[in-house]
Amino acid sequence: MTGLDPDDWDELRGLGHRMLDDMFDHLAGLRDGPVWRKLPDDFRAGLRDQPLPTAPTAPQALYERFRDQVAPYATGNTHPGFMGWVHGGGTAIGMLAEMLAGGLNANCGGRDHAPVEIERAVIGWAAEIMGFPADSSGLLVTGSSMANLIAVITASRATPNGASLRQQGVGGRRLVGYAAETAHGCVARAFDLAGLGTDSLRIIPADPAHRMDIAALDAAIAADRRAGFVPFIVIGTAGTVDTGATDDLDAIAAIAARDGLWFHVDGAFGALAMLSDRLRPQLRGLSRADSLAFDFHKWAQVPYDAGCILVREPGRQAAAFAQSLAYLSRADRGLAANAPWFCDLGPDLSRGFRALKVWMTLGTYGTDRLGRMVESCCAAARHLAARVDAEPMLERLAPVALNIVCFRVRTGDADLDRLNGELVKDLHESGIAAPSTTVVGGMLAIRAAIVNHRTTPRDTDRMIDALLGFAAARLTDIRLADVRPTDTDPPGKNQ
Amino acid sequence: MTGLDPDDWDELRGLGHRMLDDMFDHLAGLRDGPVWRKLPDDFRAGLRDQPLPTAPTAPQALYERFRDQVAPYATGNTHPGFMGWVHGGGTAIGMLAEMLAGGLNANCGGRDHAPVEIERAVIGWAAEIMGFPADSSGLLVTGSSMANLIAVITASRATPNGASLRQQGVGGRRLVGYAAETAHGCVARAFDLAGLGTDSLRIIPADPAHRMDIAALDAAIAADRRAGFVPFIVIGTAGTVDTGATDDLDAIAAIAARDGLWFHVDGAFGALAMLSDRLRPQLRGLSRADSLAFDFHKWAQVPYDAGCILVREPGRQAAAFAQSLAYLSRADRGLAANAPWFCDLGPDLSRGFRALKVWMTLGTYGTDRLGRMVESCCAAARHLAARVDAEPMLERLAPVALNIVCFRVRTGDADLDRLNGELVKDLHESGIAAPSTTVVGGMLAIRAAIVNHRTTPRDTDRMIDALLGFAAARLTDIRLADVRPTDTDPPGKNQ
Ligand SMILES: Cc1ncc(COP(=O)(O)O)c(C=O)c1O
Ligand SMILES: Cc1ncc(COP(=O)(O)O)c(C=O)c1O
Repeated sequence: MTGLDPDDWDELRGLGHRMLDDMFDHLAGLRDGPVWRKLPDDFRAGLRDQPLPTAPTAPQALYERFRDQVAPYATGNTHPGFMGWVHGGGTAIGMLAEMLAGGLNANCGGRDHAPVEIERAVIGWAAEIMGFPADSSGLLVTGSSMANLIAVITASRATPNGASLRQQGVGGRRLVGYAAETAHGCVARAFDLAGLGTDSLRIIPADPAHRMDIAALDAAIAADRRAGFVPFIVIGTAGTVDTGATDDLDAIAAIAARDGLWFHVDGAFGALAMLSDRLRPQLRGLSRADSLAFDFHKWAQVPYDAGCILVREPGRQAAAFAQSLAYLSRADRGLAANAPWFCDLGPDLSRGFRALKVWMTLGTYGTDRLGRMVESCCAAARHLAARVDAEPMLERLAPVALNIVCFRVRTGDADLDRLNGELVKDLHESGIAAPSTTVVGGMLAIRAAIVNHRTTPRDTDRMIDALLGFAAARLTDIRLADVRPTDTDPPGKNQ
Repeated sequence: MTGLDPDDWDELRGLGHRMLDDMFDHLAGLRDGPVWRKLPDDFRAGLRDQPLPTAPTAPQALYERFRDQVAPYATGNTHPGFMGWVHGGGTAIGMLAEMLAGGLNANCGGRDHAPVEIERAVIGWAAEIMGFPADSSGLLVTGSSMANLIAVITASRATPNGASLRQQGVGGRRLVGYAAETAHGCVARAFDLAGLGTDSLRIIPADPAHRMDIAALDAAIAADRRAGFVPFIVIGTAGTVDTGATDDLDAIAAIAARDGLWFHVDGAFGALAMLSDRLRPQLRGLSRADSLAFDFHKWAQVPYDAGCILVREPGRQAAAFAQSLAYLSRADRGLAANAPWFCDLGPDLSRGFRALKVWMTLGTYGTDRLGRMVESCCAAARHLAARVDAEPMLERLAPVALNIVCFRVRTGDADLDRLNGELVKDLHESGIAAPSTTVVGGMLAIRAAIVNHRTTPRDTDRMIDALLGFAAARLTDIRLADVRPTDTDPPGKNQ
């Protein structure tokens, strides 16, 4: 036997059923465990420094190691207490879809097979949700970082003579783009990776509501034109990473149209608010974008990874990415038919069947229910904001436009940045809740991003209760520490 | 209920068990079905144009659609008769790992959790297999296309003052790189996407063994230097996509070392031959590379997608990709600890738990057995080559260095490119075998790439038997067609 199929299918099948049962128990029991617990040092050392397995190991033994040493020490984002970063919570149906996709092992780079049609359907759904034309092109990718990179590359190739950039490189054209200071770091990184350089991304200041200052955008474009630069793209954000604010996409669209710039929207999580009639008005202008990046693995709760890029004008994406290669020639019939292929729309040739988990998630819940779920995350954020506003020891640091609340513990006499940073780590280690930190207005903020469908106001209340408890304990400690040295240190020993 | 967890876990659990059983039946029964069958038109139309699901659908109904309309019409690469493109076959353990990863839903972009340690272990294993230093950096990515792009970007940032390219862009430095004409198209695409332009990739001719002409490489570097260009990278291939040839990596390493160039190897599938004592000598020099791209989803049979980039010198990859962002600040304890993070080593921030399927596959089989599997693919290719050589109607078009056989049907009086192209499509539609086509020496070749662990000499024999049958039928048709017109058309009607 040189092939890798098991001699005894039933043994592995039995193990599979046990794994599945365990994972269902795990998902059904999430609330009973901590949101996070630290990986014990001996497990860590053992996992990290595993010797190369030259000989076989029984799958059962590998699984037990996963079950005992990996699963209990994962990121925590499936847990209702996770509010740290913009992570989706996943679902059981998403897990099952990954199993089916893993068994089928389709390569969705191209060719004539049904999984490609599922991805086409999902891209069509995405276009419809986002108010894009039905013939928009699009691609499932790893995440919004990649989707934003694809947008920047596509936009640069759509400039006059932009097609020649593919051969000649991007130097010498003085292409520049625009995004607000509140844009995600991956936007600047897209300029870096595409060879344009981050200096070519002009950072536009934000107004007090954390939205791009439109007058400043206008002025920056004009100044660049005067200086001989070639403005080619403006990037608005629907749901900024720090505060959840959304730029005035309608105003940006108007400027882009007037000045002939490509209008891209980074809607990593925020774009999914399009699913809600109540929230959609906040995103006005999004549907006018030339391209849109967003993630199914965030607010749509599809397991990692599942990002999406949409491009309005058919042909633009292929113009930036398609190649013609002898070993990938397209046929009129047989397995090599069914052009255009998805490998023509992005950097990847081999591509997994990401579409299945998106198809099964959207199909199972339907977009109406997903929209209600998005609304209920926002409701939990509003509940949390109200609680923060009501607590004398807490101070809110930004408006709550969608699902993110930035705030801090405020006391008169402490290093607040340090204190709040320590409190967030206390929360993590308690296993009760996992917010993150960011910087808002120069201050370290505790940031709760409610992206998980499992998070309810009860969970945000638990987080605040625990936080206040840790704050009280630390403040007592600080006061004791302030007092103790003079009490205990003999005079003159303070060298 | 606004969360997405089911009210009745048992119903979904039951469905999951049925799915798992069906997938095991599917995998155990692969040989009984066709390698490929065309998706019927009505299924295609129904799948592609599915209306946006606003209301919920029972998972059972979605699954039945998958089972009946998707699974039977997949790429075919799991089937022993698939020899078309460089696709792995997948395994049941890989499927189970995807299920576990989907349920855990870890984000391996960073933070302190066990899945990150599994990825660290897997990167360490990759380094050991490839003869790289134990402290090499590395990252699991979508595939070798992405891994090659990461290598080109990393190498450009490693040039003198290369760090400033991140801000200033790649223009104005006249950076150029080198690869053989037999290199994969994604290498040129990497130059395109990184903003260097494909003109900056000098295409070096290949010798009659389809390997980079080293003297020509030498001359090209010298000419570029004289012309004021800045040579910065040379890319060798371990296992070229068309014929499976491997460049003289040792000679390229020597030139790169002498001239101070970054030496990158694209070993998409071929690098896995390092697992075999018998094949390893062909890849001599690979372990000297500054970076290496290869795929676990190809010859290591891990389900899509699972590529890998390794970079020898620690710090180089992070120097090209790391950013410092307030909302991603690293902590000394809690969930935000455990730097460096994998998001610092490539373009993606959110990252799925690809490492688990690699860990489970390598663990289950062990590298010795995987090495034997790689050898047996090569043995099947040699068997196929011998058969081709023995058949009077067949002509081999390239040496068989590893696992790829290029050949064609040859008859005196036909348009051979057209004939061979049609024959490959006949084979696809027969469901018996799925080779692909490419162009070798200006001739259309039938290309059989034996990458699937399930493929045996019996399968290559079936392919040849069927091919000869189709060829005989078509040649009869051609002769009849030659004769028929004069027989049946009345004279003078030929306008
Ligand atoms: C606004 C925004 N853009 C882009 C990203 C990056 O997305 P990904 O992690 O999917 O690459 C994020 C991640 O949180 C984000 O919040
Ligand atoms: C030699 C070589 N390099 C690169 C690639 C691209 O790899 P991927 O499809 O994983 O992006 C391939 C694909 O077949 C290949 O054969």
